[in-house]
Amino acid sequence: MLDIINTRRSVRSWNGKQIGGGDVTEILEAAMNAPSAGNEQAWQFVVLSGKTLADYLAINGNCPKGATVGILVCGDKKVQKYEGFYLYDCCAAIENILLAVHAKGMGAVWTAVFPGNDAKVQELLNLPEYVVPVAFVPIGYAADGQPEAVSRYDAAKVHTNGW
Amino acid sequence: MLDIINTRRSVRSWNGKQIGGGDVTEILEAAMNAPSAGNEQAWQFVVLSGKTLADYLAINGNCPKGATVGILVCGDKKVQKYEGFYLYDCCAAIENILLAVHAKGMGAVWTAVFPGNDAKVQELLNLPEYVVPVAFVPIGYAADGQPEAVSRYDAAKVHTNGW
Repeated sequence: MLDIINTRRSVRSWNGKQIGGGDVTEILEAAMNAPSAGNEQAWQFVVLSGKTLADYLAINGNCPKGATVGILVCGDKKVQKYEGFYLYDCCAAIENILLAVHAKGMGAVWTAVFPGNDAKVQELLNLPEYVVPVAFVPIGYAADGQPEAVSRYDAAKVHTNGW
Repeated sequence: MLDIINTRRSVRSWNGKQIGGGDVTEILEAAMNAPSAGNEQAWQFVVLSGKTLADYLAINGNCPKGATVGILVCGDKKVQKYEGFYLYDCCAAIENILLAVHAKGMGAVWTAVFPGNDAKVQELLNLPEYVVPVAFVPIGYAADGQPEAVSRYDAAKVHTNGW
């Protein structure tokens, strides 16, 4: 498990091989087993593929292309217990998605939905007003030639009982 | 790995057994191998134990007591590339901490540092102005009698190519 955490890295190019629907469901299960503020689970997930995925990528141009599927992780403002805490829930869920993808031998990257694009994404996907896009995670089998992960542990960022 | 993700649950009572320093370092390595916005790694970690831990708990009363050590995860506003994105970095790091703790057979819980308490925590720990407490994770060996984790997968939260 620590090995999976420590060897995960962002993947931004894929080889086009399709992902099974069962894999996507298992990845979503991992996402929903993240902790959430007050256990409110203030998240919603939209799985994009095919034409809708292409349309999404045309709107949010910062996202690398080539994945066969992707998960748009959204906050659910209707169920969040504390204002703005859906963001915490979603970030924990996204990290679980990235780890589950890596554990399955696939690769993904956390991409932002930029302010200004979020309204366009809500319109494209017909999202209710209370469902707020937080991040998009394109998923696929990594193209050959990905660099190895390098540990980012930095002892200078560790402080004991104060600064 | 999926099993570790899916069986993690919040632990709020501990048996008092001490944690090794090597374990804490490995948990912090997992934290720092989380993804971060623009790879800025806008996080800092303060490890609390003994009297300082007791002082922290006296300030932030929502946190359960009894863990032998805890990690205060802070955002670093000085290195963040995008305004407010330290929160994303910290949340991903916190989830890695929780998973690493669980993988090691220990238990932890994500606790908020409530607004109004953050300034007191900054003062207690002598944190620079640019270092912002995000969450505190008390860690220990779980007391007996913890309930089993139950999967929170909810198919109603999965949407395909739109709402």
